[in-house]
Amino acid sequence: MTKAPLIDEWEQRREEIRFKTPPQNHHRLFHLLHPKQFDRTFLDQMCELTTDIRTLAKTPEGQSHLQKLLAHKRAMLYFTQPSTRTFLSFNNACHILGIRTSEIRDSSTSSEVKGESLEDSIRTFSSYVDVIIMRNLEKGLAERAATLMEAIPRPIPIINAGSGKDQHPTQALLDIYTLERSLSHRGGIDGKVIGMMGDLSRGRTARSLAYLMKNYRNVRIVFIAPMAFTMGRDILDHLEEHGIPYTATTDLTEVIADLDAIYVTRIQAEHDIAGESQKIDLSRFTISSKELGALKEDAVIMHPLPRGPELHPEVDIDPRAKYWRQERNGMWMRAALLTRIFNAEAELYALAR
Amino acid sequence: MTKAPLIDEWEQRREEIRFKTPPQNHHRLFHLLHPKQFDRTFLDQMCELTTDIRTLAKTPEGQSHLQKLLAHKRAMLYFTQPSTRTFLSFNNACHILGIRTSEIRDSSTSSEVKGESLEDSIRTFSSYVDVIIMRNLEKGLAERAATLMEAIPRPIPIINAGSGKDQHPTQALLDIYTLERSLSHRGGIDGKVIGMMGDLSRGRTARSLAYLMKNYRNVRIVFIAPMAFTMGRDILDHLEEHGIPYTATTDLTEVIADLDAIYVTRIQAEHDIAGESQKIDLSRFTISSKELGALKEDAVIMHPLPRGPELHPEVDIDPRAKYWRQERNGMWMRAALLTRIFNAEAELYALAR
Amino acid sequence: MTKAPLIDEWEQRREEIRFKTPPQNHHRLFHLLHPKQFDRTFLDQMCELTTDIRTLAKTPEGQSHLQKLLAHKRAMLYFTQPSTRTFLSFNNACHILGIRTSEIRDSSTSSEVKGESLEDSIRTFSSYVDVIIMRNLEKGLAERAATLMEAIPRPIPIINAGSGKDQHPTQALLDIYTLERSLSHRGGIDGKVIGMMGDLSRGRTARSLAYLMKNYRNVRIVFIAPMAFTMGRDILDHLEEHGIPYTATTDLTEVIADLDAIYVTRIQAEHDIAGESQKIDLSRFTISSKELGALKEDAVIMHPLPRGPELHPEVDIDPRAKYWRQERNGMWMRAALLTRIFNAEAELYALAR
Repeated sequence: MTKAPLIDEWEQRREEIRFKTPPQNHHRLFHLLHPKQFDRTFLDQMCELTTDIRTLAKTPEGQSHLQKLLAHKRAMLYFTQPSTRTFLSFNNACHILGIRTSEIRDSSTSSEVKGESLEDSIRTFSSYVDVIIMRNLEKGLAERAATLMEAIPRPIPIINAGSGKDQHPTQALLDIYTLERSLSHRGGIDGKVIGMMGDLSRGRTARSLAYLMKNYRNVRIVFIAPMAFTMGRDILDHLEEHGIPYTATTDLTEVIADLDAIYVTRIQAEHDIAGESQKIDLSRFTISSKELGALKEDAVIMHPLPRGPELHPEVDIDPRAKYWRQERNGMWMRAALLTRIFNAEAELYALAR
Repeated sequence: MTKAPLIDEWEQRREEIRFKTPPQNHHRLFHLLHPKQFDRTFLDQMCELTTDIRTLAKTPEGQSHLQKLLAHKRAMLYFTQPSTRTFLSFNNACHILGIRTSEIRDSSTSSEVKGESLEDSIRTFSSYVDVIIMRNLEKGLAERAATLMEAIPRPIPIINAGSGKDQHPTQALLDIYTLERSLSHRGGIDGKVIGMMGDLSRGRTARSLAYLMKNYRNVRIVFIAPMAFTMGRDILDHLEEHGIPYTATTDLTEVIADLDAIYVTRIQAEHDIAGESQKIDLSRFTISSKELGALKEDAVIMHPLPRGPELHPEVDIDPRAKYWRQERNGMWMRAALLTRIFNAEAELYALAR
Repeated sequence: MTKAPLIDEWEQRREEIRFKTPPQNHHRLFHLLHPKQFDRTFLDQMCELTTDIRTLAKTPEGQSHLQKLLAHKRAMLYFTQPSTRTFLSFNNACHILGIRTSEIRDSSTSSEVKGESLEDSIRTFSSYVDVIIMRNLEKGLAERAATLMEAIPRPIPIINAGSGKDQHPTQALLDIYTLERSLSHRGGIDGKVIGMMGDLSRGRTARSLAYLMKNYRNVRIVFIAPMAFTMGRDILDHLEEHGIPYTATTDLTEVIADLDAIYVTRIQAEHDIAGESQKIDLSRFTISSKELGALKEDAVIMHPLPRGPELHPEVDIDPRAKYWRQERNGMWMRAALLTRIFNAEAELYALAR
């Protein structure tokens, strides 16, 4: 193996981003708590930053540069709600940038932590690290942690990596990034028809994605869900308030040909109170090779994963399937987020010069 | 953000330590097992080294230097007694110096480890890493590990990170550092009146701190504890032997105005045999805003954390409250300890030149 | 401490390997799944590479070089069958080469992982890292993971770190390395008499070692096992097919004087169906100081560890005892394996120039 071709590739990639300067006027991002923090400017900047980091990471030389970017930072991954996927995505996003990580991956690690208040635990973690990435079953803990930070002399950023059924803002970011990028050859999300299918009432990912559609122009949303799991009234009100047209149906076949993208979600049977999921013909809310024929040739199929039977593995080889890329995008988007939070964009672009 | 001010700050900090040379005549430290290893020279040197590392770490450039210091070392954190706080403190101390870490954080990780002797497990760990940091419920395991090291061809240092109710020497070091530093504008610990309050019979931290007071001149100790939890006879004998005056009381109000520092500890109800803690009016061994008025204006309030009701969160904003700083000092002190154990002080000071 | 002697030592070590070039014609190694992948050329190359990495690692300067070798790589240690020893060995092998690690160390870490197919879990891990090191109770999972890699656009290497009672190829590699190196002053494994003792029917390590003996010339194998635990017919057939002479006995005393090496293994009582192990006089399949007198003066004693009563700790200080070295060799061999898999041998040797 000679390194020359790789260095050439690096030079070429570098060319693409070398004259970039970081956006000048953006608000400083400190905590990342809720998708309501995201406006169009922020979303566009994050998408661009994510792509630039991916580009840099395509060569060993770029990877080495990235690893120096935040090598002096330390992160705490505080996951009392276990999630292998989100944990690995954040952990490796940290490692890409050289950030050292400490972890709590279940709530039983320490009886000490149990005995003390959330505030004391969070302040303890903040004593040792530069950012806390937290995922919890209970609603609002990330907000409480962020509130604590306002009251102490050495505040550090809090990243909400998912709080119960409530919010999962970094998932929303990676979904937007994947959607925007997969549709980039057609002008991006603006003007597209976006389908969302499955358990829309209980799945926070589709809810967040619908919520964020207000940032895009001329989007139309099609909700495809069993009657028991239709999109919540609060989100529908939000769409109406922002003048975003939507329709709802229980029949995928009647709308599938219109969709530019379909965001498939799993029926969250674990949240059933009286076995609601059992009564539903799930095969009608499924993408398999049978449905692929009706879908536009340049449509985008997404899924937040893990999947159940609603997305058949035979779809994986279809070029429209973007969910595995979506998953990997999560890591790059989280690396971009950490770069932004630590205000290291100027240094990132300086690396390429 | 421009980097110039930071580099200026770095230059200025560097100035403070650039003409330092590491102490020449100190004993080589290998294992850290017990506070009885600490004499005044050692304590003073460790305090100074801790402050110098903190100083270096105040700038990104200094942080980068520190990360190279022990980047070729690997540590094992063997915590069969879970302790999130001590674990994180050590883990991040390692990361500050570039040390890579492997961890066992509970005793159930591996059935293999259970089946074999402690000696075989420790020797196995020593095959892979350069230092073992261990915390156990049982007394004397760190000493057994250190004894094993004397018998094998590739011994590595053992650090006792707490063994049951027995010893916790790195906690003693960080307590001394915080006390000395918090009193530095008044000449340090020498000549001060140090109060220790709470569960003095079962809390190892107050015991260790009292034990180490023999290294300081003209110190007077005031023990404030319920009758059921007074300081142990062994420690009192030790104080008498070294001519250190002490008094004991069950009434904080009668002594509080005399104290230069008060080291508050938690009632360790988990060690009750017959509900002893239930019979005590704990409110009399508590610091809250009510007590703050009686305390000297430049007194120091410490606590090893986690806290119970004996230390009210409303005290946190009082400038005399040093316990959060004390917690963070633990990380810096442990980084200093690793630097000392790996004999890297000369390289540390060379970094600043 | 002055650094000069170390640098001199580094220069001297460097001299040993500076004119080396990596083997030119070897097959590219991608997945490591099964000892059947190993031929003599591969085994010899891996032994040499392992020694060279150990040599480089003997100085801080060499250690720093090694840490840069794969610093841009990330590994996933997916251990649903817990094994502290193998985990630590791989984790530290990664750390030696600068590889960042993420871990799953038991199967209960995430309910998500449980719910999805192995293929989806593996593909998820492969989204985030550059190599998956996996250890499982079930047979054939590493092969399934490798098969998946052939079907996806971004395949990464799979390393089998032990699958149930089935295969443990990296243990086989480190055993071969230790045996070859311990016998190097006598021409290596070729022409030697190799004893294997203990639970030969259920222990995969002795099985693999016997299987690999076909790669060496004029080797004779002596199996020493209770009747209930003799070597399996499949391995005996394999030896016969390759013309490797072997004998089997239940009496160590009658063969011990002939052995150039004895590979001792533990009776795996945990796999008993009807208490078979209870009926056996294990003292007859044991090495203690009593047996040492009968063993050749330059014989080699090995054991895959952890040990039971079949290998007395009093043997540890005998110069023929190589099992602790064997354990540490595992880390170096695994570092060599990662170097080979990532095709980084040319860069490794370039480091020394």
